[in-house]
Amino acid sequence: MRPQDLIEKKRDGGELTRDEIAFLIRGYTCDEIPDYQMAAWLMAGFLRGISEAETQALVEEMLYSGDVLTHDQIAEPKVDKHSTGGVGDKTSLAIAPIAAACGVAVPMISGRALAHTGGTLDKLESIPGFRTDLSLDEFRRVLAACGLALIGQTKEIAPADRKLYALRDLTATVPFRPYICASIMSKKLAEGIDGLVLDVKSGNGAFMRDLEGAQTLAEMLARIGRGMGKRVVALVTDMNQPLGRWVGNAVETREAIEMLQGTLDGDFAQLSIELAARMLNIGGIEEDLDTARTRAVDAVTSGRALDRLRRVIELQGGDPRVADDPGRLPQALLSRDIRAERSGYVTGIETDEVGRVVMDWGGGRRRLEDAIDYGVGLNIHVKLGDPVKPGTPLVTAYYNDASKFESMADRLRRAWSITEEAPPPVQMIKAIV
Amino acid sequence: MRPQDLIEKKRDGGELTRDEIAFLIRGYTCDEIPDYQMAAWLMAGFLRGISEAETQALVEEMLYSGDVLTHDQIAEPKVDKHSTGGVGDKTSLAIAPIAAACGVAVPMISGRALAHTGGTLDKLESIPGFRTDLSLDEFRRVLAACGLALIGQTKEIAPADRKLYALRDLTATVPFRPYICASIMSKKLAEGIDGLVLDVKSGNGAFMRDLEGAQTLAEMLARIGRGMGKRVVALVTDMNQPLGRWVGNAVETREAIEMLQGTLDGDFAQLSIELAARMLNIGGIEEDLDTARTRAVDAVTSGRALDRLRRVIELQGGDPRVADDPGRLPQALLSRDIRAERSGYVTGIETDEVGRVVMDWGGGRRRLEDAIDYGVGLNIHVKLGDPVKPGTPLVTAYYNDASKFESMADRLRRAWSITEEAPPPVQMIKAIV
Repeated sequence: MRPQDLIEKKRDGGELTRDEIAFLIRGYTCDEIPDYQMAAWLMAGFLRGISEAETQALVEEMLYSGDVLTHDQIAEPKVDKHSTGGVGDKTSLAIAPIAAACGVAVPMISGRALAHTGGTLDKLESIPGFRTDLSLDEFRRVLAACGLALIGQTKEIAPADRKLYALRDLTATVPFRPYICASIMSKKLAEGIDGLVLDVKSGNGAFMRDLEGAQTLAEMLARIGRGMGKRVVALVTDMNQPLGRWVGNAVETREAIEMLQGTLDGDFAQLSIELAARMLNIGGIEEDLDTARTRAVDAVTSGRALDRLRRVIELQGGDPRVADDPGRLPQALLSRDIRAERSGYVTGIETDEVGRVVMDWGGGRRRLEDAIDYGVGLNIHVKLGDPVKPGTPLVTAYYNDASKFESMADRLRRAWSITEEAPPPVQMIKAIV
Repeated sequence: MRPQDLIEKKRDGGELTRDEIAFLIRGYTCDEIPDYQMAAWLMAGFLRGISEAETQALVEEMLYSGDVLTHDQIAEPKVDKHSTGGVGDKTSLAIAPIAAACGVAVPMISGRALAHTGGTLDKLESIPGFRTDLSLDEFRRVLAACGLALIGQTKEIAPADRKLYALRDLTATVPFRPYICASIMSKKLAEGIDGLVLDVKSGNGAFMRDLEGAQTLAEMLARIGRGMGKRVVALVTDMNQPLGRWVGNAVETREAIEMLQGTLDGDFAQLSIELAARMLNIGGIEEDLDTARTRAVDAVTSGRALDRLRRVIELQGGDPRVADDPGRLPQALLSRDIRAERSGYVTGIETDEVGRVVMDWGGGRRRLEDAIDYGVGLNIHVKLGDPVKPGTPLVTAYYNDASKFESMADRLRRAWSITEEAPPPVQMIKAIV
């Protein structure tokens, strides 16, 4: 078998066999197949299509390119949640402790901020001392000790995905569902989970803007996970405005802590409770969804979820006092309101632009090697459907670089569409697969 | 400008500007753009299409990626011939001396055998001592001294093409007309020529099997050359059987020498005289084609063409005695006939398979680093339309590896289709562009 023959086969619209996919992925992982041949194959697949069987083979080969964890010493069901990425989405920080407090073990391997979307790892690292680079042994020990552990992808987990993702990023082959599926599922299935809750974002703050595309992606992801013997539920949820009231790193971590302290109103808390309930359900802890939701809320109001967060912070080297006093998180030096200029209702928010403003102000990274200014963030005062008058604060910006204020304020004002008629109410959960 | 944005543009079917093509080719040539990004772009172009303007830009950027020769000290018109590759095609060895003898300067940069097709350089190197790796200075001196010079691509000539060709070979992006055009023309235009005669092969021994594809390629090549201010004529010629009576390296060199010694019958001599006449015509030596053909024949019968060959061999370090005594060329130790098993007429020859048999028997290379067994070759006794009986020799094979005889003989017998009815006569020149 020669790589160029498999490139040619895909170039001409052929379907690769399981053995051929295995040859490609294994050869690429061990550096026997060079980047340039893989790049040509990826582009041929992007333009000619990748079948469901090929996608399944990609997932399995990428999964078994590295270690697949097992947690035999842990009796609890192992369930994780994965989001396809949004703006203001700090649900992981809330639901992992909630689910753990309800008897689910959550071995969570997360990613960093990319493009306009935030990343769980960066939010966690805004906690002073918090380490996300645990070894797999430490990861297992933390999980066993407190029911959750929160790390980044290690070199042992799906190394084929790490190589492929970097290559796709540089060869314009990222936005393609079969590759997205293979990347997500190869990492998640390596965590050693029994079940997975997927939150597929749809809207102008998501990578999949249209509902149909998001639904198709949700179906593909669920089918692949179920094909590998896992219990999977995929929710397609709204990302046409930032989730919750804060966008940034430390500010989102604080918002998640405040939710665990009992703040249960608003879309962020609503979605977190729903996703946590789905985790209990998928994990076999509670078959009735309404009861599962009640149990998730109880975990918050009783303080048990916050306790889990306090413990995981301590076990991963962070300052556990932030769980009770989030004022200890990094804060920006400056703050200033950005106000509406006309009256009406908020009928649109350019969510990706909101994310980019935070990134461009230092709160995200353009390149992986960029440093993050953890204190930078936005407090979102008005969301879709809210009435405003001239002078109503849209956003309070928290920042350190004052030189950028005018341009950022201008971009934010333009990101809010204000019209005379109120829009229909937002439906948070758009589909369940 | 970022390479990944240009890959994305082509992936989505966009047309690159002249500046964007320049950015890609210049960046790739100086190793600033890595192979994997170029590979993704090449595949996107292959599947999405490359416009005429993009092709023109590719040619010019690849041409000016290296030295473009000039031969101001030479008063004669500078004309070359290029063939797209066939089996038994030794015309270059005959027509360069003929054209030189008629007052055309022929600065010929040739290639090596690739896949089933032969290469002029390999045939030349079967002459003991003959050097094809002259420096550009030596090349110019030989050209000035005897009116022709025959070398391989140097590192100064179209380095972008050298890098791109190697990459295309490994990424299944070779058989695509815009890339083929850019590769051929960037090298040929770098020779410092005033005119070019193109021999675009069509048939089962050519890279372009169908006539329509060959004609389109001929038109593209001619248009590009004329767009660069050169006189160009492109002939589409038949490659549904080996050209001439011999296939191999030393055996083809001998056949070319024998033609220059006066053997002017058969398709090889006919095509050589036609191509040489076209070179005289394109070079402005003789406007009337019939007179040009007569002058080409005269150059042979007078011995002037053979004299040019003798001189170029001597100037390039080879043994000039082979021009009078081709028995000095390398010869295989063994020979044996392969005979027909039924009676009828030859209605088809799998020409590419004939080329592959020579290659697999040691007369060609699978990889560029393979050594060539120069003596290996086939003497073709019956061609399309010839009658045969059981026992008529189809081919005499000359070889050193006897262990392969049975399988090679079997492949050759199967390459000849023999049916009861005679086929229509072969038309050698199918189109003139």
